[in-house]
Amino acid sequence: MVVVAILAAGRGTRMKSSLPKVLHSLGGRSLVEKVLDSVEPLSPSRRMVIVGYQAQEVKAAIQSSFNLEFVEQTVQLGTGHAIQQLLPYLEGYTGDLLVLNGDVPLLRTETLKQLLLTHQQNQNAATILTAQLSDPKGYGRVFCDGANIVQQMVEDKDCTPAQRENRQINAGIYCFRWPDLAKVLPHLEANNAQKEYYLTDAVTQVGKVMAVDVADYQEILGINDRLQLATAYEILQRRIKEKWMLAGITLIDPHSITIDDTVDLQPDVIIEPQTHLRGNTTIKTGSRIGPGSLIENSQLGENVTVQYSVVTDSIVQAGTRIGPYAHLRGHTEVGTNCRIGNFVELKNTQLGDKTNVAHLSYLGDATAGTQVNIGAGTITANYDGVKKHRTKIGDRTKTGSNSVLVAPVNLGDDVYVAAGSTVTEDVPNDSLVIARSRQVVKQGWRRKSAEF
Amino acid sequence: MVVVAILAAGRGTRMKSSLPKVLHSLGGRSLVEKVLDSVEPLSPSRRMVIVGYQAQEVKAAIQSSFNLEFVEQTVQLGTGHAIQQLLPYLEGYTGDLLVLNGDVPLLRTETLKQLLLTHQQNQNAATILTAQLSDPKGYGRVFCDGANIVQQMVEDKDCTPAQRENRQINAGIYCFRWPDLAKVLPHLEANNAQKEYYLTDAVTQVGKVMAVDVADYQEILGINDRLQLATAYEILQRRIKEKWMLAGITLIDPHSITIDDTVDLQPDVIIEPQTHLRGNTTIKTGSRIGPGSLIENSQLGENVTVQYSVVTDSIVQAGTRIGPYAHLRGHTEVGTNCRIGNFVELKNTQLGDKTNVAHLSYLGDATAGTQVNIGAGTITANYDGVKKHRTKIGDRTKTGSNSVLVAPVNLGDDVYVAAGSTVTEDVPNDSLVIARSRQVVKQGWRRKSAEF
Amino acid sequence: MVVVAILAAGRGTRMKSSLPKVLHSLGGRSLVEKVLDSVEPLSPSRRMVIVGYQAQEVKAAIQSSFNLEFVEQTVQLGTGHAIQQLLPYLEGYTGDLLVLNGDVPLLRTETLKQLLLTHQQNQNAATILTAQLSDPKGYGRVFCDGANIVQQMVEDKDCTPAQRENRQINAGIYCFRWPDLAKVLPHLEANNAQKEYYLTDAVTQVGKVMAVDVADYQEILGINDRLQLATAYEILQRRIKEKWMLAGITLIDPHSITIDDTVDLQPDVIIEPQTHLRGNTTIKTGSRIGPGSLIENSQLGENVTVQYSVVTDSIVQAGTRIGPYAHLRGHTEVGTNCRIGNFVELKNTQLGDKTNVAHLSYLGDATAGTQVNIGAGTITANYDGVKKHRTKIGDRTKTGSNSVLVAPVNLGDDVYVAAGSTVTEDVPNDSLVIARSRQVVKQGWRRKSAEF
Repeated sequence: MVVVAILAAGRGTRMKSSLPKVLHSLGGRSLVEKVLDSVEPLSPSRRMVIVGYQAQEVKAAIQSSFNLEFVEQTVQLGTGHAIQQLLPYLEGYTGDLLVLNGDVPLLRTETLKQLLLTHQQNQNAATILTAQLSDPKGYGRVFCDGANIVQQMVEDKDCTPAQRENRQINAGIYCFRWPDLAKVLPHLEANNAQKEYYLTDAVTQVGKVMAVDVADYQEILGINDRLQLATAYEILQRRIKEKWMLAGITLIDPHSITIDDTVDLQPDVIIEPQTHLRGNTTIKTGSRIGPGSLIENSQLGENVTVQYSVVTDSIVQAGTRIGPYAHLRGHTEVGTNCRIGNFVELKNTQLGDKTNVAHLSYLGDATAGTQVNIGAGTITANYDGVKKHRTKIGDRTKTGSNSVLVAPVNLGDDVYVAAGSTVTEDVPNDSLVIARSRQVVKQGWRRKSAEF
Repeated sequence: MVVVAILAAGRGTRMKSSLPKVLHSLGGRSLVEKVLDSVEPLSPSRRMVIVGYQAQEVKAAIQSSFNLEFVEQTVQLGTGHAIQQLLPYLEGYTGDLLVLNGDVPLLRTETLKQLLLTHQQNQNAATILTAQLSDPKGYGRVFCDGANIVQQMVEDKDCTPAQRENRQINAGIYCFRWPDLAKVLPHLEANNAQKEYYLTDAVTQVGKVMAVDVADYQEILGINDRLQLATAYEILQRRIKEKWMLAGITLIDPHSITIDDTVDLQPDVIIEPQTHLRGNTTIKTGSRIGPGSLIENSQLGENVTVQYSVVTDSIVQAGTRIGPYAHLRGHTEVGTNCRIGNFVELKNTQLGDKTNVAHLSYLGDATAGTQVNIGAGTITANYDGVKKHRTKIGDRTKTGSNSVLVAPVNLGDDVYVAAGSTVTEDVPNDSLVIARSRQVVKQGWRRKSAEF
Repeated sequence: MVVVAILAAGRGTRMKSSLPKVLHSLGGRSLVEKVLDSVEPLSPSRRMVIVGYQAQEVKAAIQSSFNLEFVEQTVQLGTGHAIQQLLPYLEGYTGDLLVLNGDVPLLRTETLKQLLLTHQQNQNAATILTAQLSDPKGYGRVFCDGANIVQQMVEDKDCTPAQRENRQINAGIYCFRWPDLAKVLPHLEANNAQKEYYLTDAVTQVGKVMAVDVADYQEILGINDRLQLATAYEILQRRIKEKWMLAGITLIDPHSITIDDTVDLQPDVIIEPQTHLRGNTTIKTGSRIGPGSLIENSQLGENVTVQYSVVTDSIVQAGTRIGPYAHLRGHTEVGTNCRIGNFVELKNTQLGDKTNVAHLSYLGDATAGTQVNIGAGTITANYDGVKKHRTKIGDRTKTGSNSVLVAPVNLGDDVYVAAGSTVTEDVPNDSLVIARSRQVVKQGWRRKSAEF
């Protein structure tokens, strides 16, 4: 049984932001949400988030996502002081406490499992996560014996030259047997320049302490400024993209591609350069996406192609080709083997199979059947200035170029709309509809007016 | 005289693909085609491709490109077994055999020439390609005397600690004097855990063997998964882009640009970020392409600018400006000093010099003369629902905004089409054509219907 | 008091360009302009640019930007010969001369200040900029005593093996006490294979010489080919982007973003991938730009979003959303909380607050009031084939889909334009305007003509 405490009270001054540090985003998830995600598979019995700076904003942003308890640290007097705030909440608790940082978002669940396992198997009072750094400068050093039992912890500035050579550093992630910590916590002292209460002081007093080295030192990267935020994003992206490449996805120029970790891809998907896959997106086998495309919260079937387009909150069935320069949004659904072409926007629109909207069209709040051909420049006038109305188009209907369908309006099956027509009334099945003037030619005429 | 054998029978399980490994693509060419490209300048007398897994797919994909012979290896029992399949085909052949891997696509022709030269000048029984790796772990080591004569070859797992220090490794590329190899091949044994017949066993038995170090170890990278495919693509792209930069092309942010090795560029071309040049594309001096553009199988003249656009299978003459957000395709030809603007698609369309299509137009199957001005929103209705028809437009003709030209239709020279007109019949030279209603104004009116 | 001399006479053969080397561009500024920018804060008393190859082009490109004097070096006989050309111009001058290279564009002003300070505080005859390189091969070595006084300078090819180990190299940037240099200059000899007069020969003869190491060796990178041009651009971009990240700007995938050093950003701006900020651009807090956008010479207010769009020479007020696939240009001004949507081009157009142009529109030379709704496919026909005219649209006016406004034309306040109408005459306030035909339906009709 483990209780998780997440330190999320700091201001993060170096972020130079009006947003609290832990709410900054790393590919669609905030830093603190990434930390919460990493502990979720451990099934913690309680999740305590210690908030302080802009506490209300932090609460509001994350409280709906997890079953969280918020503990307020009204003044920020150090990590030890932060954990002291838990004392009233954990009275009588006899299990373990896992202490994480809300600004250390790259820790893997496997690492935390290893930390917990070592802690419990060895009946430690505390177990700390450490890392071996080639350049340990600035970090507190951890000195262990051969059995990984911590003998001493020394701040960087207090190290002797010989101690400075030790490359094992304290990552600031701890597992405590709570009763042992609870005994020590009230007696922490702020005997330092910053006048802060350090949790590391507690570590050295609780009893037997072991260290567990993290396999990949990149996991312990803390975010203090936007440069580190960018570095963390790059590390996270490399993880995600390597995973997908090894799973059978071709990424052409992977450096230029970003993929949120909420995305799901099937083998033999090809992602072209400068493509971004975000949110709850799934793409099936044989599809080719990009270059220059953004797919967000959308489901793409097999053998779909998307080129230089934006698809959000939409469903696209197998074999459909999209782009270049198309925009699907607002719960649009496109059937199989459709063609959505250049400069076409679909908003809250449903299209049947084998239907084409190939050029310069806007369909909003429209439903069209199968084998429909929407001519170039066709527009559904869905907005009367007050509210939105729907357009319904039957099977095999064809609209001529630059026609307007003024909603609400229904076109039946096998309707032909002549080019340049504005359709304002319903059209029955198997009809031709024309709403335009016959052409008049004035020969020998030289244009003098400005009437064009 | 040299016969080339290419090993292309493997499944490539780690690619996790329904496509055979050697057919995966590296910038428009499959892996095995890249290998075939690299040997072509050696003028091999025969090109034998040893196929096995999905043999029919491999054959179908490449048989038209080169004068190839396919040798089937119905079960995959190792590289030695693969080369054994050549015995019936090469009976009586007395020249050399160059053995290449279909999944090692970055070898330079110069490297192969050096291998052959060393082989022939020294009258070796075999000559093998080796590389000096800083991290040789996992590779078979090659031990040579001071004259590059191979003394011993040891698999990584069989190395003594001292042998493990040797950084010269076997790249798996061989040149054999065929009669010497042919004698040894039938007697190979599968004395190993995998029960496979190894070609390296033959190497040690044929007689005098020399090693040739590859100058750049990146050339011997084998492709086993999509991560290595991405790495190989990056190496190949770096080669191509460095070549063009040294030849006088400015690449702005070269990391974000990709250029197929089939592209030809003249000095003082400038390529902006996120631009992709593919296939049989040529671009002449002074042109500026990008950002965010894709040019494929197209010829661009001098001083052309393209910004955020897609140009495929098209020809653009000198001084023409394209984009942002234009799409030229389907054998479009644009004259000199034209302006193809925003949200314009040209398909199988020919435009004369100084003709403008500046905004929101689709021209399909159209021919226009010189100094034509196509108004914003003009569309050629080239498709009657059954087939495509052509639109012809004379010199100096101007179309008004949102006009439709319903093909087949001919507009003469010096024609003016009034804005909002739908033209369905031919228009003689020097004519004004109007096909629209006169405007009616209802003042004091408050909109009550939904008719907009 | 310091006079600056910039060597800008070389051809730069390896650039393979019709443009003189120093005029090649590094993010909107030429190489020689970057050098001039770096010395400007030193307030030099004179700025002498030594030109030779394509002297007229160099003069024409930069003479308007700074208060420059051009000194012609008609034949290029080395750096010493170049500086000899200054003798007639600087007769009687008793101050210092700072010698810079027009193709070394990354030097920081701080470095030059340090060079000058050392020069003046130590009353040196000359002070040279040096760098410590891990791979000094190819560079002239500088040998100093413990007080940084130069003892010896040796060309790479003349180095003994022991001298070759010295990693302190001559960066080719010098500060001279002019009278000391002027005495030595006339006596330089061209005793070398190239028959050139070297300025380094003068350095060793002027008297007391000190060396100042540059803090960051990347500053002294010289540009000789386009590969080095790309490297310099990457270094410059990294500097700029790190500065902005530390100042509170989020860059998502910073590698794919470019920012000219003339751009100004406020904290909590978010820049998405593949976005380029150029020229005199400012963006206020809370705005989110990209992916795939180009903003040039434009001012964006607070909380503006731009996605996959191009904005040049325009002003966008707070809270306005742009894109995807919009193009603002030609001194366009958009008010607060507007929506400029898909496939919309605005040219020299002014829009009031809360006005929407959401789909497939071209507004050129137009003025619209507040709360205007421009329907999808609306076009201002601003060009009559001879000249451009303006369209004026009042407050709360709404245009129907695919309407055309033929300029010059004025629409009052609260006007409704029916869908598919072409408006050619002015419309008073509070009017409905219709210019289209009533629809005719021919039921049971099967299309036989090609009239669509």
